[in-house]
Amino acid sequence: MKQTIILDMMGADKGPAELVEGVKLFLARNPGEYRIVAVGKQEELQGLKGLAELVDAREIVPMEAGARDVLRLKDSSMMKAIDLYESLHADALISCGGTGAYLSAATLKLKLIPGIERAALIVPMPNAIGKITNVLDIGASNENSAEHLVQFAEMGRLFNQAVYGNQEPRVYMLSNGTEDKKGSPEGKKAFEMLVAKNFPGFKGNIEGRETLNGDADVIVTDGFTGNIYLKSTEGIFKIMSNEIKKFFKRNLFSKLAYLLAKQGVEQMKHRWDYRTTGGSMLLGLNGVVVKGHGSSDALAFSYAIEMGKKLASANIIESMKKGFAHATSSTIVGTTSHSSS
Amino acid sequence: MKQTIILDMMGADKGPAELVEGVKLFLARNPGEYRIVAVGKQEELQGLKGLAELVDAREIVPMEAGARDVLRLKDSSMMKAIDLYESLHADALISCGGTGAYLSAATLKLKLIPGIERAALIVPMPNAIGKITNVLDIGASNENSAEHLVQFAEMGRLFNQAVYGNQEPRVYMLSNGTEDKKGSPEGKKAFEMLVAKNFPGFKGNIEGRETLNGDADVIVTDGFTGNIYLKSTEGIFKIMSNEIKKFFKRNLFSKLAYLLAKQGVEQMKHRWDYRTTGGSMLLGLNGVVVKGHGSSDALAFSYAIEMGKKLASANIIESMKKGFAHATSSTIVGTTSHSSS
Repeated sequence: MKQTIILDMMGADKGPAELVEGVKLFLARNPGEYRIVAVGKQEELQGLKGLAELVDAREIVPMEAGARDVLRLKDSSMMKAIDLYESLHADALISCGGTGAYLSAATLKLKLIPGIERAALIVPMPNAIGKITNVLDIGASNENSAEHLVQFAEMGRLFNQAVYGNQEPRVYMLSNGTEDKKGSPEGKKAFEMLVAKNFPGFKGNIEGRETLNGDADVIVTDGFTGNIYLKSTEGIFKIMSNEIKKFFKRNLFSKLAYLLAKQGVEQMKHRWDYRTTGGSMLLGLNGVVVKGHGSSDALAFSYAIEMGKKLASANIIESMKKGFAHATSSTIVGTTSHSSS
Repeated sequence: MKQTIILDMMGADKGPAELVEGVKLFLARNPGEYRIVAVGKQEELQGLKGLAELVDAREIVPMEAGARDVLRLKDSSMMKAIDLYESLHADALISCGGTGAYLSAATLKLKLIPGIERAALIVPMPNAIGKITNVLDIGASNENSAEHLVQFAEMGRLFNQAVYGNQEPRVYMLSNGTEDKKGSPEGKKAFEMLVAKNFPGFKGNIEGRETLNGDADVIVTDGFTGNIYLKSTEGIFKIMSNEIKKFFKRNLFSKLAYLLAKQGVEQMKHRWDYRTTGGSMLLGLNGVVVKGHGSSDALAFSYAIEMGKKLASANIIESMKKGFAHATSSTIVGTTSHSSS
């Protein structure tokens, strides 16, 4: 069936022209029929004529807008995109706008899935064995209770199963040591709760150093720490990429070396480039709500759209609803283990 | 004057033989007279004969030992090293043992500097402009109050001034956004307190992505987040180094490329190698207490010793005492600004 994908074309740092190119890249890489609805200043979206339906929106939600601001901006591209996602029963929604505003508006309009108290931003990170490690929450919340963290573990597990097909994802808590007793105060409580309920695939604590070695399919953290974690790894990746560029430019020999090693260098860069992993998803809502990077370029946006497509195909929302209905009912009947029910 | 340096030779993952080599590396790189006292199983320290005084200690503090465990282990290399640091009025103390035990024992024996409620682990990180960014706390605490964070800012400032000679270090709070209102609950309070007291050199919030771009001389964070931050950056660095190795090994051309680019590659690796930055210091105590990496090899340990030497030469403890006496008295007389007093 033809997927309907709604795009908020405004609100990325690089502007709508860059995102127009991103849509084209997506379509070039993903042959097939899509109904694409692009929302934004129509005069800036002319490049999409014939490829997408254009919906005019005159306002842009500022990056730093809070919950109240965005709800007042009814003619903003973000609000209109969310409305269209609902009214068209669309399959995926993608925006590069500010997390706070996007989260507030999407939560208000689409509502949380029953059993989930907080949405979480989940990100797919490339790891050292060439697979994906999902980390959540990387910044939807500022502070999380132990109960939130336990729900994140369940959300991450269901996401990883549905999207990457892992039967029993290996779930870890991000902590300041591998020992069971390590962790932030809420993290320690969550650890005990996961053990007490015999959470399937729960492997204990993981340190920052080991997060991307391939041991973990899902890593759970509070939103503040997760945000620092994600952006720090991005920062180091960027610095290292620049350093690699620099050393190849040192002299004639190193330039020659680049020509010889080019293929490998480019493959490595591509594999670790966070732009190609497709942004993150606001998980926990009744909808496929993809958050593109605020600094997305065409390539990054094309992969954010691709992620929306992939998540919709994976029926992620149905999996989440079923999973949490299950989790909730087993709590009611007093079972403490998911795996046994 | 000849410096006295006390070394706990046990408790590193790689064992004392590796650290013996580290002492030799230090001495080779740092000509001059030192009184080096090496504490540990003397039969394993024979390689240091003629270079250091050997003090026998039969017990090793386990990595995961808590406060109470270490205090009971009176014949451990760590406890004996701390005792010797005191009784010999030594200049620096270095151990690669577990942070929790080291922190507890050192705090009990050496005491906190008046005005400081919590010790912090401060680390020198190489940054993109070839200088050092100090980050604290990277794991002495599990949880910190706003008051602790404000003290960390002062401690970091004094450390950076004394050790790196920056007149007015640029101090940032590690946060999940650059806006003033971003941060963890305690982080936000600390931000307001720093602004209210017109803290010299305070530049606001910094995101994980920008931490090592060279803008910051000092970055303040709670110990839990700081630990995740530090270890994550180490992890990515290691993965990227392995990737670089891998692409040079791909084929004949890439091997040739390595020969051509070798010098640049090795320089880059050296510059970003956390082993060469010298471990971290337990800051806030009445003593130069250096914490070597638990997984230190000879090279890393040699730089940890070098850091102890450097910190002692910089009179870091005197600077800290003076700074905090000052901070305390200006609070008493009601001045809100350090810079004006």
